[in-house]
Amino acid sequence: MNFTKEQKETLMQLAFDQADLAQQQNEIPIGAVVVDADGNVLGTGYNRRELDQDAIKHAEVIAIQEACAKLGTWRLENCAIFVTLEPCPMCAGAIINSRLAQVYYGAHDPKAGAAGSVVNLFTVEKFNHHPEVFPGLYEGKASQILKDFFGAIRQKRKAAKDLKKN
Amino acid sequence: MNFTKEQKETLMQLAFDQADLAQQQNEIPIGAVVVDADGNVLGTGYNRRELDQDAIKHAEVIAIQEACAKLGTWRLENCAIFVTLEPCPMCAGAIINSRLAQVYYGAHDPKAGAAGSVVNLFTVEKFNHHPEVFPGLYEGKASQILKDFFGAIRQKRKAAKDLKKN
Repeated sequence: MNFTKEQKETLMQLAFDQADLAQQQNEIPIGAVVVDADGNVLGTGYNRRELDQDAIKHAEVIAIQEACAKLGTWRLENCAIFVTLEPCPMCAGAIINSRLAQVYYGAHDPKAGAAGSVVNLFTVEKFNHHPEVFPGLYEGKASQILKDFFGAIRQKRKAAKDLKKN
Repeated sequence: MNFTKEQKETLMQLAFDQADLAQQQNEIPIGAVVVDADGNVLGTGYNRRELDQDAIKHAEVIAIQEACAKLGTWRLENCAIFVTLEPCPMCAGAIINSRLAQVYYGAHDPKAGAAGSVVNLFTVEKFNHHPEVFPGLYEGKASQILKDFFGAIRQKRKAAKDLKKN
C-alpha cells in the first residue's frame, strides 16, 4: 500500500473529524478510520468509553469492527488504519488480530502507547502479524487536540474549586 | 478477592462450558466469564471470530462488554475474569482497560500469550493497572480441549486428502 501525501492528509483529517465527534460529547478526543488499499473508508470510530460505559469502546476497535462487518471478514489484510493517538495495548492487539497491513498514528502516548512509547507489540517476533507502522503523522495537531481537551478540563475543575472557596 | 477452591472450580467450569459452546459451532474453543467479588457471574463469552467474522470477538472481550453493560460502568474494579486460555495482547489490554482485579487462566499460549508466554502486559510498570494473575488453573483440561480440537481438524484434513488421492 502506498498512499500519496494528499491521501494521507485526507484520511488523517477524517480521523481528526472522528476525534472531534468524541470531543463534542465530552469524550477524550481520539478518532480512527480503517481504509482499503485505495483509501476507501471501510470503518470509522471514536472513543466512546464514557458514553457507552464500555472499556472496549476505543476508536480503533470500533473502526475495525465496522470494517470487518463491511467486508464480511475478520481479515483486514489489505487495509490500513489511521488513528489520532498511538494505540494502547488492547488496540495494538486488535490491529494484530485483524491483520491490518499499515498503522498511521498522530500523537505518541507516553503513558499507554503500545507502538513504541511504553511497549512495542508490533515488533514482537513471535506474533504472527507485523503491520508497517508510520508514527507521528500530523503529530503537532494530534497532540494539541489532546492538550487542549485536558487543559479545558483542568480549567473547569479550577474554576469549580475557586467558586467553592468564595 | 479471595475465592475458595470450590468457587474457582465452579467458575472455571463455567469458562469451560463457554469454550464448549464455541466448539459446538466449530470455533476454536476458548471461553471466559467475568464475576464479581462474590463469584456472581456478570458476563460470559466464547470465541466468535469465525461465526461473526469479527477480529475483536474473543471470549474475554465479549465477557467484559457484557459485564460492563450489566454494571453500567466500564470500571470492573472489584471483578475477576476466568478464561480457559492465556489472554492475547488485545484481551490482556482489555483486561487492563477495564481494571479487572484478578485474572485466572487455564492453558498457556506459547504463540500469542500476553501474560508471560510471549510478553507480559500485566507487569509493565508504566501501565496504570496491574491485575493479580493466577496462571495454569485446570491447565491440563484447558490444554487438552485445544489439543483435541486441533487434532480433530488435522484428522479431517488428512481424511479429505486421502479421499482425494483414492
